[in-house]
Amino acid sequence: MPSGGAEHRSEQLSLLAGLCHENLIAPEMDDLISTLENSTFTDDPLREEAVNIRETRRLRERAVRVPKSLVEDLARVSSLSTESWKEARQNNQFTSFQPWLEKVIHLRQQYADCLIASNSRYDALIDEYEPGQNTATLTDLLVPMGESLTELLHSINSSSHKPDSSILSNTFPIDAQRDFGMHAAKTIGFRFEHGRLDVTTHPFCSGIGPGDVRITTRYQLNDFADSFMSILHEAGHGIYEQNLPKEHYGTPCGLATSYGIHESQSRLWENFVGRSLSFWTYFFPQAKAAFPEALRNVTLDVFHFSLNAVAPSLIRTDADEVTYNLHILLRFELEKQLIGGSLSAADLPEAWNEHHQQLLGLTPLDDRSGCLQDIHWSGGSFGYFPSYSLGNIYAAQFFEQAEKDLGNLDTLFSEGNFTPLKEWLTRNIHSLGQRFRADQLVERVTGSPLDYHPLVNHLHSKFSRLYHL
Amino acid sequence: MPSGGAEHRSEQLSLLAGLCHENLIAPEMDDLISTLENSTFTDDPLREEAVNIRETRRLRERAVRVPKSLVEDLARVSSLSTESWKEARQNNQFTSFQPWLEKVIHLRQQYADCLIASNSRYDALIDEYEPGQNTATLTDLLVPMGESLTELLHSINSSSHKPDSSILSNTFPIDAQRDFGMHAAKTIGFRFEHGRLDVTTHPFCSGIGPGDVRITTRYQLNDFADSFMSILHEAGHGIYEQNLPKEHYGTPCGLATSYGIHESQSRLWENFVGRSLSFWTYFFPQAKAAFPEALRNVTLDVFHFSLNAVAPSLIRTDADEVTYNLHILLRFELEKQLIGGSLSAADLPEAWNEHHQQLLGLTPLDDRSGCLQDIHWSGGSFGYFPSYSLGNIYAAQFFEQAEKDLGNLDTLFSEGNFTPLKEWLTRNIHSLGQRFRADQLVERVTGSPLDYHPLVNHLHSKFSRLYHL
Repeated sequence: MPSGGAEHRSEQLSLLAGLCHENLIAPEMDDLISTLENSTFTDDPLREEAVNIRETRRLRERAVRVPKSLVEDLARVSSLSTESWKEARQNNQFTSFQPWLEKVIHLRQQYADCLIASNSRYDALIDEYEPGQNTATLTDLLVPMGESLTELLHSINSSSHKPDSSILSNTFPIDAQRDFGMHAAKTIGFRFEHGRLDVTTHPFCSGIGPGDVRITTRYQLNDFADSFMSILHEAGHGIYEQNLPKEHYGTPCGLATSYGIHESQSRLWENFVGRSLSFWTYFFPQAKAAFPEALRNVTLDVFHFSLNAVAPSLIRTDADEVTYNLHILLRFELEKQLIGGSLSAADLPEAWNEHHQQLLGLTPLDDRSGCLQDIHWSGGSFGYFPSYSLGNIYAAQFFEQAEKDLGNLDTLFSEGNFTPLKEWLTRNIHSLGQRFRADQLVERVTGSPLDYHPLVNHLHSKFSRLYHL
Repeated sequence: MPSGGAEHRSEQLSLLAGLCHENLIAPEMDDLISTLENSTFTDDPLREEAVNIRETRRLRERAVRVPKSLVEDLARVSSLSTESWKEARQNNQFTSFQPWLEKVIHLRQQYADCLIASNSRYDALIDEYEPGQNTATLTDLLVPMGESLTELLHSINSSSHKPDSSILSNTFPIDAQRDFGMHAAKTIGFRFEHGRLDVTTHPFCSGIGPGDVRITTRYQLNDFADSFMSILHEAGHGIYEQNLPKEHYGTPCGLATSYGIHESQSRLWENFVGRSLSFWTYFFPQAKAAFPEALRNVTLDVFHFSLNAVAPSLIRTDADEVTYNLHILLRFELEKQLIGGSLSAADLPEAWNEHHQQLLGLTPLDDRSGCLQDIHWSGGSFGYFPSYSLGNIYAAQFFEQAEKDLGNLDTLFSEGNFTPLKEWLTRNIHSLGQRFRADQLVERVTGSPLDYHPLVNHLHSKFSRLYHL
């Protein structure tokens, strides 16, 4: 969107948010839901109608607590605040964004206050992205996992065996990157007759409707991994969207379970599949044909290791599998304080830099590579970041179970056969919509509750092999 | 949009069309408009409020005659029919599209029947695109103009002085085409902070809202004119949209006058400016710098002549300034018969080919280069094509008047100064929204009623010079 369109869009978003809110909180809606709740539809709680009734009730219960004016303000201010963030980030000037951040935090606090029954403001916001989750469970999950990962990072740092990451900065012609990326997305199961791949500054996936799922990436001539791994990541989101049950479009049964489950799908395809040796056993010869100059004299093992280089970094979206969750831990700690009120927007840059140094051993050069790097807070998305780590954790649990159910996936991948995994995911996750809450879904699919050990085990075993630990 | 998204989009469009229709025909709306009609707001008919009241009444009067189900059917079927047309055009298979065309014609006939007071179905449809116009006036305009242009075409064909159009098929790197096109669009007055230029199969301009106007083009390595002239054309539309009064957004005072007036803006910048010698006096040195290989040893005069090559062709959008209106005359005659009922969809291909041979001395090779070439009819836009010729005619009248008011425009253009013309157009046309109907606007701005002679005179004088007639 050109910058001049921001004001109009913010008004439109505010209007739409208000209209949706009004429909949801209308007394007739309460009557209708009540009638359905007392019908035979709810005799079996897993029946599609019962799921739709349950989830619509949940949405309405949240909505009735929030005044329409706050819903509209949030939509309008978030949209304008994001524009301010874009400019502030470009100019590396936190102070110009600070008043907007203050407004957004204040509105989100008010919003949380409307929702709170007994727990904290931050809990109320988390529940929006990951229904059923809360600060305590997340702390118990993310903090010890962070400790394990820091340990692993130290071992990796001490290893004398290092990848040659410079390979990925050779010259990769952009047309060939696009063609190769599309080919890979198609091979893992993203259907281009029901979707598109376009170019944006920040990659994303957007489900426009059944049969129309848009994913994006960005290309740089001297960076193969950035565009390619983004394509696999967004294709993972896209495959989820493309395989939600079309007949339930517009109702909870046709919607993704949660942000965390959505992220599990992108991270599974990006990391568990796309950074595996077996994936590249199949694709590397094709990559060599697509990029004959850049990959001349490069072997499969060297290439695979370079794609899995681990190093502390400043930018979350560039982070490797090991340090990624430390970036999330940082945001989790800070947004808890911002929403709780113990950290002011003005003090954010300093707090960010301190925590970053502490967790990753690096201090950002400036706010652009520090607290201004992510779009989320500008749009009011506090409580969203933990979904990324949940996604990684869920992905590990799902992948482990898929291997149990399907046999050795590496054998399939090295033959270019991703269909069994895709179909397993569709059967166990995509096709269910919001039938189960995220924690119930994980338990149902894997037989175990939410557990970070499969992720840590996966990372330990993978990086021990690569780094000769 | 990926093909899989068509069905969902057609449902969405149908829903929105129905909702808008319902609001417009609601009895409360009648009451509200009546109250305003009897208020002091309408004392001065040119007062903004009076204009908004008048135009909203006109829209409502049309809408109440049409049942909501027909509005929804039209939206749904048009959207699906366009998908069928895309496929039929690609496969060059008219028969697969024919049943959809029949459906669309039938729905448009029903729609026209709802609106008819005394005149023909086709009149009722024309009035939607160009309020106040009708078949008789258009016939009196387009037929004699067609005769003049045919005569001019014959003289041009007999001239031994011919342009070397092959220059434009040299190799023009696409990045340079985009940069040069954006530079030209910016120079004539398209504001990129309030708009974007993107790539699509068929160029278009879409006003998303104040401050956000999107134009598109397409690039081919060996065709400079196609992308560049499309950019100027769409930028002309875009400049109109960008200069509508923002404070009236969403009301008639903030909307373009008519399709014909919109087209006058695109054609004015594309042809009267963009194909003039003075425009290229300024831009050609920059073009040589942007395309050093393709334009090596090419002089300004040779380049300018090649951009103005006249030759009968099969495809409307490729047509030169002289033959373009003959393509429109063909469509005008045929759609009059299709809507009137004297020509069936099944007989369209043959009728098209016959008329084409008669008017332009060529018979299409196939339906893809014949009756399947344009998107319009697939979407139910019957009565739209005459707006293109009206646009050319209005453009000539406006341009002639602008020269009278501003002095020699060529002197300004050759210095790269397009601001006085842009500001003249904004003052006299853009800023007025729907204050005046198209025919009133032309008379008000130029002092003359709608008249094709300025266009024919312009073409005669320009091409006599170029072709040494």
